[in-house]
Amino acid sequence: MTPYTPPTQEQLLAIRVNAGIEELAESERFAAAEPDLVEAIVEGVGQFAAGEFAPLNRVGDLEGAKLENGVVRLPEGFKEAYDAYVEQGWNAIASPEEFGGQGLPFTLSCNVLENLGSANMAFNLLPMLSVGAIEALEHHGSDAQKAKYLPDLVSGAWSGTMNLTEPQAGSDVGALRATATPITEGEHAGKYLIKGQKIYITWGEHELAGNIIHLVLARLPDAPEGSRGISLFIVPKYHVKDDGSLGPKNDLRCVSIEHKLGINASPTCVMSYGDNDECIGEIVGEENRGLMAMFTMMNNARINVGNQGVQIGERATQQAMAYAKERIQSARAGSPDKTPVAILEHADVRRMLLRMKALTEGARALLYYCAGQVDRGTLGNQAAKMRAEVLVPLVKAWGTDVGVEIAGIGIQVHGGMGFVEETGAAQHWRDSKIAPIYEGTNGIQAADLVTRKLGLDGGDAVISLLEEIARDAADEPTLFALAGDCAAIARWMRDEASLDDRLAGSVPFCTMMAVAVAGWQLMKQAEAVAGGAAPSLAKSKPVTVRFFLDRIVPEASGLKASATAGADLLYTLPAEELVG
Amino acid sequence: MTPYTPPTQEQLLAIRVNAGIEELAESERFAAAEPDLVEAIVEGVGQFAAGEFAPLNRVGDLEGAKLENGVVRLPEGFKEAYDAYVEQGWNAIASPEEFGGQGLPFTLSCNVLENLGSANMAFNLLPMLSVGAIEALEHHGSDAQKAKYLPDLVSGAWSGTMNLTEPQAGSDVGALRATATPITEGEHAGKYLIKGQKIYITWGEHELAGNIIHLVLARLPDAPEGSRGISLFIVPKYHVKDDGSLGPKNDLRCVSIEHKLGINASPTCVMSYGDNDECIGEIVGEENRGLMAMFTMMNNARINVGNQGVQIGERATQQAMAYAKERIQSARAGSPDKTPVAILEHADVRRMLLRMKALTEGARALLYYCAGQVDRGTLGNQAAKMRAEVLVPLVKAWGTDVGVEIAGIGIQVHGGMGFVEETGAAQHWRDSKIAPIYEGTNGIQAADLVTRKLGLDGGDAVISLLEEIARDAADEPTLFALAGDCAAIARWMRDEASLDDRLAGSVPFCTMMAVAVAGWQLMKQAEAVAGGAAPSLAKSKPVTVRFFLDRIVPEASGLKASATAGADLLYTLPAEELVG
Repeated sequence: MTPYTPPTQEQLLAIRVNAGIEELAESERFAAAEPDLVEAIVEGVGQFAAGEFAPLNRVGDLEGAKLENGVVRLPEGFKEAYDAYVEQGWNAIASPEEFGGQGLPFTLSCNVLENLGSANMAFNLLPMLSVGAIEALEHHGSDAQKAKYLPDLVSGAWSGTMNLTEPQAGSDVGALRATATPITEGEHAGKYLIKGQKIYITWGEHELAGNIIHLVLARLPDAPEGSRGISLFIVPKYHVKDDGSLGPKNDLRCVSIEHKLGINASPTCVMSYGDNDECIGEIVGEENRGLMAMFTMMNNARINVGNQGVQIGERATQQAMAYAKERIQSARAGSPDKTPVAILEHADVRRMLLRMKALTEGARALLYYCAGQVDRGTLGNQAAKMRAEVLVPLVKAWGTDVGVEIAGIGIQVHGGMGFVEETGAAQHWRDSKIAPIYEGTNGIQAADLVTRKLGLDGGDAVISLLEEIARDAADEPTLFALAGDCAAIARWMRDEASLDDRLAGSVPFCTMMAVAVAGWQLMKQAEAVAGGAAPSLAKSKPVTVRFFLDRIVPEASGLKASATAGADLLYTLPAEELVG
Repeated sequence: MTPYTPPTQEQLLAIRVNAGIEELAESERFAAAEPDLVEAIVEGVGQFAAGEFAPLNRVGDLEGAKLENGVVRLPEGFKEAYDAYVEQGWNAIASPEEFGGQGLPFTLSCNVLENLGSANMAFNLLPMLSVGAIEALEHHGSDAQKAKYLPDLVSGAWSGTMNLTEPQAGSDVGALRATATPITEGEHAGKYLIKGQKIYITWGEHELAGNIIHLVLARLPDAPEGSRGISLFIVPKYHVKDDGSLGPKNDLRCVSIEHKLGINASPTCVMSYGDNDECIGEIVGEENRGLMAMFTMMNNARINVGNQGVQIGERATQQAMAYAKERIQSARAGSPDKTPVAILEHADVRRMLLRMKALTEGARALLYYCAGQVDRGTLGNQAAKMRAEVLVPLVKAWGTDVGVEIAGIGIQVHGGMGFVEETGAAQHWRDSKIAPIYEGTNGIQAADLVTRKLGLDGGDAVISLLEEIARDAADEPTLFALAGDCAAIARWMRDEASLDDRLAGSVPFCTMMAVAVAGWQLMKQAEAVAGGAAPSLAKSKPVTVRFFLDRIVPEASGLKASATAGADLLYTLPAEELVG
């Protein structure tokens, strides 16, 4: 596996052009995000990630997380790297200042995650999950809970988890059965006894942080059925006394960890709460409103998963580029000079490398555009908030799909070496494959797009985005055509199509939308670079943008038939005929 | 991992409609391939594969092949299953009758491999490589060599390997350096001393067969440089005496086996020949004509690798179907009935399952169409032989690409369970990824299409195929359009485009061509089924064919821009700017 080289200039370009950081810094809230600080953060976390997280990526895959006598062990070096991460303050970028955070834009926390995740996707899940827990408590915790839990979560001294899934409750969170029983007497009066088993709990148990704050969804007695009967609880691994010091261990444990296709350094735990009926939790927010609280952080969590596509895309591209530059094989086709050349001189290898690079840059442009809209939403801009709502499923679904695609091309560039694990290319591909699944499968993202998001703003939120793209793309025929295709499909879905027809076309439509927005945001990057924005990218940026617009955008237009074909054919066969 | 259920009716349909087995049986050479025998073979090998090979697929992945003191060990059960395979005569289907084979069409050996490979892709590589060795000796060996080596290779008592690759000689076979020195004296006079190291030797060492016949490419002293200085040698693991009995072990050994992404039960060996300068080989055919001999079997080998896409597609589809039928999650969207349903009732899951099924059936139709053309070529039909030449890169490249795609969708259908190795879906995806790489990367297949194949028959071989498709697809607008797109690109590539421009568009063009032929052959299946050909497929076939024509074919048309965009953009950046 090659080292990780932070693409600092590409990141700064996206942060400036697509997220519009300078405009954000004009607000009082984000005034600290001035150019010097932004550069210092992007450069600093890039160097940190390359120096501390990246060297642990291969060993983390090879040795993985191991459960031994209830304790999850990580390979040597993880503890030291996490300590350094906490010490340098990278966990606190976007968290509230009153709890020790820096209060900077979400855009910059995206960059922290991007660098850490490119360096080590499995390890980065630990900070990523903690950020989610911080957001949930920040928005829904009581003042006392915030005071008690946030400072150590914000610093990274403690980590956080999300506990939603149970064996029978995956995409259908409302089917969960974990219970919470009010405690009416004794030292824990006012709290709850938590009982149940949760699966797929990322970093559910480990020894890197001093405490783990589990956020657990469970049902109160007599709660309504389904998603309206779910409450959210803080369930710490170690009880936290009122003075902030740690008490005894709570009644919870990691029963087992999964043997997975990838992200092997990230322990994916089966967690059991209340085996001895002594698991104590505190309710967060109102009774039966737990799912609402989870939704608060869901948007950012989904963006953070979409970010993983960018992360793995960048790392896989770097790896493939390095190999293609070094590997000598065959002369150029048709060349009178029969001297073998580096394989990046062959046309199809160039095509693969440029495709990897263009997709990565497109996904990054989309990611930071979305992050910038989230930050504008935080500043109270309702239009931006709605725009972000539309963009989230695109970032999550397409971002993670292209992550897998890029990593797959990366293996192909390596030829036979790509199939040999020692090379490292295969790990990126294996790691990448979780991202289209978790935090709402990409099918669920697409369903969200064609149901809830298509109805926003009286049904105009999607259309107005596409009109904006078409306006800017007047001189780019492929993008103009794709935006037009998308608008036609959006209108058809909104005004005519049945729910089944919309869902039947949801995934191809989601891809088309994402490519349109990414292509549009890449155009803006190219314009900025042409205007002198990033001199070091002056040669490469026009090429990748052209590649994206001339080749990737027309492919997306080819999905139009699939997006509009409807559901009738899908339901022609009864289940037994379909399965055979 | 779910059991393997042979898709016997689908296979018979493809063998009848796409390969045209009944027409083949009208020839004297293939007269034995009458309907009863064909059915008996397809059913028989399907049952054998399901019963003997399939149960070893998961353990083969988990435990893998292991090298211990120079001996490659397979998990328990492999030896017994291979013995049963030999005993039942499945290795001998298409081999010459004079050496104990059945002399049946290649089409039927494709079906043997299809069933064995769906059951256990890694294990199936052992018979697959032996078939290649048999073909090489059948066409290029002397009578004495045939008599000495073929009977035991045909029965399967011995296995065969291909030794081309060396660290510096992958796609560029001409760069290999292994040497062969004539022996002028002693008991081995007339033979050669072989010396060199070969990598990526599939099933290069194992104990399942009594002997291993290595076919090794090496250079004679003073041989011309490059691919015109390569000769082919028989290098047996154990010397074979003139009476056919085994002598002492030859001076060759397996140095190590690779730690791979998939096909873990298939030992991928680094082989060392002549460590003690006592490795004896016999030349096959003429001096310096070894690569030509290899080319003889290359077409079939490439078809057999394309077949692996069908194999993994079928198995992954079955696995996903079984899961989607059992897994209960969420009510149908918009349904007043809030009862959770099996996930195959959800529109997007149906889309995924039908896509998997349609792609698998399309790849199978293309595979058997190509196999039937190969068999007609064997009968002396030159037009069919040329048609097969055009089809081979399509079968290999697109077949293996869709294998990876289908296996990837299979994981997605499983949701979180798909990422957990115990489920089995992940193994299919890992296994599938080698097929686009070996036996000529898919990039090399596409290059073959736009260079050599495009020039066949004075440049008409590709065009005439497309005209035939367009004629038959007059009532299928998407397929008619795609055939027209392909013909326009083919003419542009043939008549106007530079070599670089052709290569730059080769991979998208190859995909477009393959989808066009597959769609056309699926149309023929649908017509046959409508005419009563396969009553058990009467309901499902029209649906999968419709899905393919309405959704997958238009996607392929979306690749037109990429196929014709040319090479200029790819070469805009000098290497150092590209890599950054």
